[in-house]
Formats: sequence, structure tokens, C-alpha cells
Amino acid sequence: MTDDALDARLRRLEDESAIQRLLLSYGPAADAGLASFAAEAWLEDGEYDWDDNAEPHQGRAAVEAMLQSDLHHSLIGAGVAHFGGPLLVEIDGDRATALNYSLIMRREDKRFYLWRVSAVRWDVERSGSSWRVRRRTNRVLDGSGAGRALFGSSLQELFGGGPA
Amino acid sequence: MTDDALDARLRRLEDESAIQRLLLSYGPAADAGLASFAAEAWLEDGEYDWDDNAEPHQGRAAVEAMLQSDLHHSLIGAGVAHFGGPLLVEIDGDRATALNYSLIMRREDKRFYLWRVSAVRWDVERSGSSWRVRRRTNRVLDGSGAGRALFGSSLQELFGGGPA
Amino acid sequence: MTDDALDARLRRLEDESAIQRLLLSYGPAADAGLASFAAEAWLEDGEYDWDDNAEPHQGRAAVEAMLQSDLHHSLIGAGVAHFGGPLLVEIDGDRATALNYSLIMRREDKRFYLWRVSAVRWDVERSGSSWRVRRRTNRVLDGSGAGRALFGSSLQELFGGGPA
Repeated sequence: MTDDALDARLRRLEDESAIQRLLLSYGPAADAGLASFAAEAWLEDGEYDWDDNAEPHQGRAAVEAMLQSDLHHSLIGAGVAHFGGPLLVEIDGDRATALNYSLIMRREDKRFYLWRVSAVRWDVERSGSSWRVRRRTNRVLDGSGAGRALFGSSLQELFGGGPA
Repeated sequence: MTDDALDARLRRLEDESAIQRLLLSYGPAADAGLASFAAEAWLEDGEYDWDDNAEPHQGRAAVEAMLQSDLHHSLIGAGVAHFGGPLLVEIDGDRATALNYSLIMRREDKRFYLWRVSAVRWDVERSGSSWRVRRRTNRVLDGSGAGRALFGSSLQELFGGGPA
Repeated sequence: MTDDALDARLRRLEDESAIQRLLLSYGPAADAGLASFAAEAWLEDGEYDWDDNAEPHQGRAAVEAMLQSDLHHSLIGAGVAHFGGPLLVEIDGDRATALNYSLIMRREDKRFYLWRVSAVRWDVERSGSSWRVRRRTNRVLDGSGAGRALFGSSLQELFGGGPA
């Protein structure tokens, strides 16, 4: 085995680990009210397309502004978890795509309830020695079919007719 | 360190990554209605033992048929998430076992509710350059004790008296 | 690339995998009623600080006693899942910190409900060829701000102003 082949195999695993760490930091940062920290996961001109019935947040500063909004702080104040599920990561050189579920849980009457359950697609890019988010797309898995379409088109684009 | 020792360490990590990707693809594919894609995770003669009060789906074609059924499509039509939790993977050569939780969430009145919460055991096998599912076993974590028994017997079989 | 540099890169990935396996074994063991197995994840003098309004469980034996209590067995008897989310792991030599969400789901009327949704911080240490828990800290993500504070202080301590 050459050093180059070895390095490439190690690097793929390290990239996968780095991407997972990046994307898993969003939920805890959002729930902690660390708006700047959470937004830092995005490229400066990255995008957060959070719902098909609304305008995307364009740019890192817009993501940060959303997390500083009264709405977001009212969620935190009442009790909320922006939970992200395990990530299915597919790397292609300096770009990668990851799929997971986002569950937003809100506190009510000494319990929590599932408010939004979404299909999520993350398009990320290598940026220097790190990875950053080019676009995050969320679609609720409700009767509209939007979540279904996002998962379906992404799986087919990344893997064709079946898992690797 | 010899090349062989090195390759074995790398391969274990690569296998773990491949198994996680395989198993994490099921939920998004099922929710997207990609019946053939989702069933492709199974060996042709694999099994999906989805409940202790029902007959297992025997063979990949039976898994696909279940995902093409009216029942499954009515779940998708109303809004559903077949969420799989993080996987505890134990590899033994060309076979591996993984444990996780399955949460099926269904849409109702602008919220989602937890319909089935199950203990899951995946028995997988290397198949050429890929991994495929020999058997998936689900047991609901309700008062019947079925989920408890599945997690308990699997942990003891794989790890003995405590974590590695 | 020297053998030492190579070994260090591989070891970091192997440590991350080992820590995830250790921490992901807790939920299934707790739900299976395997008190000794679950408690074995802790160092003998480790701590489980499970709520800011209660005394921590001091020592592995105290964790095991909690899991053998009537309260814990009544949870299992009615149906419960101690679900742990994906882990954000940061390793520093022979110590590591991991953050995730804990969701405790309980059975009721043929459904499950979210009882406790917590921010979790795991402080772990290398112990021989394994890793073990020095301290687990849980804080509910309710209006008290305790969960928010735990995630916030941990992210800032580990990563400073943004993700790596």
C-alpha cells in the first residue's frame, strides 16, 4: 500500500468525522442561544432553505439573525430541542452531502411534543482545513409530500437505485 | 507497523462506516416511498422480523412488497418518519451486528406523535464489496417485555457482562 | 508519513469509535434492566449528575443501584426507551468530552410520549485499553435554562467561538 493510497483512505474517514462534528454542533448551539457559533457552520454566502413555504435565509448573517430573533428566543425560553439524527454522509472530493432527520421538540405541561419533523439535506464544502455548509434544506415530513420528495431525489442522485 | 496490520485497522473503520451508511439509508428510502431502494439493503433471502406478533417478511421481495402496500402508502400520505437512531456496531469478520432504536413518528393535528418505539437488532453480512442485511428484528419497547428481551440478549451475546 | 503520525491518526478515529460504542450502550442496557452492564460504563468513582435539582449518583455502585430501583423497574414494566442521540466527541489525549441529547420516551395508551428531553455532557477517560465515564451530566431542556447553560458552556469550552 502506498503512502498516498493510505492517506486517501484515512482522509475519507477523517472528513466523515469532521463533517459529522460540524453538523451535529448546530442543534446544541441553537438551543444554547449561541447564534454566532451556530451560524459559523455556514459559508459566508451559504443558505438555509428551512421551509418550502418561506424565503430561505441567505448568508451566514441571516442565519445568525434568525437565531437572534424574538421567535427563536421564545422557543428557548419555553424549552426546546433542535435535535438532529444520525447523518448519512456521502463525500465527493471537496464537496459532500449529508441526509438526516431534524426533530424540533417543545416543552408543554411537563412533557415535550414533536412540533416539526423534517427531512434534511446538507450540502457542504471543504473550506481550508474545515468543512462549511453551502446549503441546508429542510422539508417537513407531512402530507404535503415535500419531505418525501427531498429524501427521494437526494437518495437517487447520490446512490442511484440502491444503497452502496 | 506492517501493511497488513494497518490495513486491518483501516478496514474495520471503513466497514463500520459502510454498515452505518447502509442501515441509515433505510428510513429516508422508506419515507420517500423508494420501495426497491429500501429493500435493496437486504440480502435476496434476508428477513425482516418486524414484530413478535406477526409473520416476518421473508426475502427482499417481501420487504419491497410491504413498502409498496396500501398501508405503507397511507402512512406516507398522512406524514410519517421512520427514524433510526445511532448504531452500536460490532463487527466479526464478514458478519456484524448493530443495535439501535427505531422511532416511527406520525403526523396529526399539526404535530407528530410517537407511534412505535422499538429495539432493533440488525444482523448483516459482507456481500462482495458491500454489506447487506441478513435479518432485521424489531421489538416494541412496551410492557410486553419484548424490546427489553431483544436488547438484553443481544448485549450479553455481543459483549458479555459489560461494554468493551 | 511516519508510522507514528499514521498511528496517531488511526488511533484518534479508533478512540472516537470506541467512545461512541461505550456511550451508546447505556440506553439499551438501561432499558433491558441490565443494571450492572449499564453501570460498568462508569469508572468505579465516576459520577452521574442526572438533574440539577437532585443529588448526583456518586460512584458506579450508585448508578447500578438506581437502575435496580423500583422506580426504574416500574418505567421498564410500563414501557420506556432511554434514547441517546448522535454524539459530538472531542478527544484530548486520554480524556474526551461528548455532547448529545437524551430522550426518555414512555408508553401510554398505545403511543409513546416524550417525558424528559435533556442536554447531556459526558466526560470520559481512557482506562487501560477501554474508555470509561468520569461524569455524566444531564440537564432538562425546559424553561429553567439548565439545559441551555450546559450546552452553551460546554461548546464554548471545547470549541471557542465556533465549530472546528
